Amino acid sequence: MTAVIRLPLPARAQGRSLRVPRSGPRLALLGTGTVGSAFVERCERLRAQGVEVPAFAWLSNTRALREAGGRPSEALAQLDAAAPVRRDTWAPWVESEGLRPGDVVVDATASDSVAGWHSEWLARGIHVVTANKLGNGGELVRAQAIAEAQEEGGARYGDSATVGAGLPLLRSIRELMAGGDRICSVSGVLSGSLAWLFDRHDGSRPFSALVREARDLGYAEPDPRTDLSGEDVRRKLLILARAAGLALEAGQVQVDSLLTDALASAEAGEVDALLPSLDAPLHDRLMKAGAGGARLRFVGGFDGEGARVGLDALPASHPLCAGGGTDNIVAIGSCRYAQQPLVVRGPGAGADVTAAALLDDVLAIVHR
Amino acid sequence: MTAVIRLPLPARAQGRSLRVPRSGPRLALLGTGTVGSAFVERCERLRAQGVEVPAFAWLSNTRALREAGGRPSEALAQLDAAAPVRRDTWAPWVESEGLRPGDVVVDATASDSVAGWHSEWLARGIHVVTANKLGNGGELVRAQAIAEAQEEGGARYGDSATVGAGLPLLRSIRELMAGGDRICSVSGVLSGSLAWLFDRHDGSRPFSALVREARDLGYAEPDPRTDLSGEDVRRKLLILARAAGLALEAGQVQVDSLLTDALASAEAGEVDALLPSLDAPLHDRLMKAGAGGARLRFVGGFDGEGARVGLDALPASHPLCAGGGTDNIVAIGSCRYAQQPLVVRGPGAGADVTAAALLDDVLAIVHR
Ligand SMILES: NC(=O)c1ccc[n+]([C@@H]2O[C@H](COP(=O)([O-])OP(=O)(O)OC[C@H]3O[C@@H](n4cnc5c(N)ncnc54)[C@H](OP(=O)(O)O)[C@@H]3O)[C@@H](O)[C@H]2O)c1
Ligand SMILES: NC(=O)c1ccc[n+]([C@@H]2O[C@H](COP(=O)([O-])OP(=O)(O)OC[C@H]3O[C@@H](n4cnc5c(N)ncnc54)[C@H](OP(=O)(O)O)[C@@H]3O)[C@@H](O)[C@H]2O)c1
Repeated sequence: MTAVIRLPLPARAQGRSLRVPRSGPRLALLGTGTVGSAFVERCERLRAQGVEVPAFAWLSNTRALREAGGRPSEALAQLDAAAPVRRDTWAPWVESEGLRPGDVVVDATASDSVAGWHSEWLARGIHVVTANKLGNGGELVRAQAIAEAQEEGGARYGDSATVGAGLPLLRSIRELMAGGDRICSVSGVLSGSLAWLFDRHDGSRPFSALVREARDLGYAEPDPRTDLSGEDVRRKLLILARAAGLALEAGQVQVDSLLTDALASAEAGEVDALLPSLDAPLHDRLMKAGAGGARLRFVGGFDGEGARVGLDALPASHPLCAGGGTDNIVAIGSCRYAQQPLVVRGPGAGADVTAAALLDDVLAIVHR
Repeated sequence: MTAVIRLPLPARAQGRSLRVPRSGPRLALLGTGTVGSAFVERCERLRAQGVEVPAFAWLSNTRALREAGGRPSEALAQLDAAAPVRRDTWAPWVESEGLRPGDVVVDATASDSVAGWHSEWLARGIHVVTANKLGNGGELVRAQAIAEAQEEGGARYGDSATVGAGLPLLRSIRELMAGGDRICSVSGVLSGSLAWLFDRHDGSRPFSALVREARDLGYAEPDPRTDLSGEDVRRKLLILARAAGLALEAGQVQVDSLLTDALASAEAGEVDALLPSLDAPLHDRLMKAGAGGARLRFVGGFDGEGARVGLDALPASHPLCAGGGTDNIVAIGSCRYAQQPLVVRGPGAGADVTAAALLDDVLAIVHR
């Protein structure tokens, strides 16, 4: 199980000398954007409370790679002040001799190429903790490679942050399965930003205005199309389905996008101007739903029949209509929970809870 | 940590020879009532599905103690057919040389004396899995002894079945704490039978009739006063609070019992005839709540101010008013979930889910 490949200690890399501790897991953070910075802040806070967080070996993003001893926040400041470097000056280092078996990589990027490294790290005995959904939420072959690499390298894959920002969703599914249950269905409001949008959308303001407000409040992705197309929810649904043991291909999920054709094909710079094209069709759907006493919720789910992501009109008493703000709500049906599902609800988006979920996984690995 | 006290192999006990496997954990079930029988049935079902469940060394209740090889259900039938024996003929065997370090005792009794053994078993390196709430839900000194004995004996204490019948409640609290969070508050509908009663109680039928129906449906405890007095909820609240790191004494929980004085002091045989004394006061409370648009919910909770169990009138939109049937609903507030709580909801009572929770804990111990 734990057949890790030993690598030479990285005394020198990229021509710079590295002081790396000779024992104990080290932590490598990739991505120091919204989530990565919140993660550094939480490490600092927990350390002050006496919780043992492994020392940062270094921090990195597309701009720089640094050896970073001392306090995490100092390292981050040092990094921010550093001159930009090209990725190809440090990528080979991360990919090969820079990381040792037992180290923990924290992926706080949204990068497809970084997600492509997950299985290689795991196979080398390097633990991976990720907020990036493109590992288990991408193509099936990649998710399968990640599962096999965990076996091969004996390393752990921490993905709590990818769905529900650490809410007990993936964990509950895995624990039900470990107890001999079969997961029959999962359905839920999996996007915090879409939850917020459809909770607010009452016809008094155009939908496009709400999208802009959500972006300003930091709820929506920089390009709101990642949310509105259903792509973000599709990824989360794939992660949940695969945790439930289904070999679901990305293409098998029926995704009903909210985007108009014009918006879907627009250049990034044109998106904002085209947002109002959503207003009339969504106003129509809201009126139709309201006439039947229903509410609109953007839902992702699978059951024995298949998997689908899209906007549903649900009766106001439906469990998925509960909750407010950016709450996620997920109902899990299993052999055990056949008549009444297990329902988990709570804040499922935002830098702070996402960072906390990353650190949960890191601590579970290093304190095991 | 794992300083287990080695005991001589029990070749003979109580004058009867025991064929015990020389390796691998064995499982001892105490209590073969509603929950114990459902546990045996689930073991059988999972074995048929290929899930590895440890062999039963024996089964026991107050009537008999048997060596039991072969299929669990056969052992149970054998036990049921056996002649009753006095407890003091087998109790010393369980308390001393009958159990080995690494074995797993499953406590499916409601016995205070069995709960008193939990810490002794743990200290000897014997794992304990329990549906009996009188371990961590009794006096604080007993809960503390259980915690210390786990350290001492290196054995595990599986208590998922004691609150919410395996819903991710205790687990979520412990995982939040492991991630550096502080639990600020817990409040919830913790009794499946009281949930059902107050969900049905709409004034059309007297409360006492509903209590009888709940008993006939198998929702209520045999003596309904265990539920109606708030004692069952108090125990669950103590278990949750202690999992959250609070040294809460049983006497520190303010319990507002639903019982009238006459009911509280009645002999067991008089309870049924006295149930109608509940009808008028509870009808009054229902009318008062309804006039203000509120609903009655029997709630247990703690926060920085203290701990309380009792009947509350809550607005219909309150999270604890969601759910139906015998659903438990619990809201957990922590540093991380400060604005919006984590809410977990689902079937929290019944022999099947309780038995499943017991087996989850057993499998987590033996497959670790
Ligand atoms: N925000 C949330 O509420 C939330 C919740 C759950 C999950 N997530 C996920 O968390 C991840 C990060 O989100 P975010 O909001 O923090 O994004 P962000 O603010 O855009 O930050 C992304 C970071 O990744 C770095 N980066 C990009 N490509 C990289 C590469 N190839 N190698 C190393 N670093 C690279 C970027 O560096 P440069 O700035 O130098 O380009 C930046 O520091 C995403 O996958 C997102 O889906 C976010
Ligand atoms: N039913 C539920 O939904 C539920 C849910 C969660 C937790 N629980 C808990 O699960 C436990 C069992 O409940 P239940 O409904 O199964 O009760 P039950 O049907 O009354 O069964 C209790 C069993 O315990 C045995 N027993 C009593 N004292 C004993 C002793 N000192 N040593 C060994 N065995 C003893 C009894 O044996 P005899 O019949 O020979 O006396 C009987 O087999 C209780 O603690 C209950 O609170 C129940």
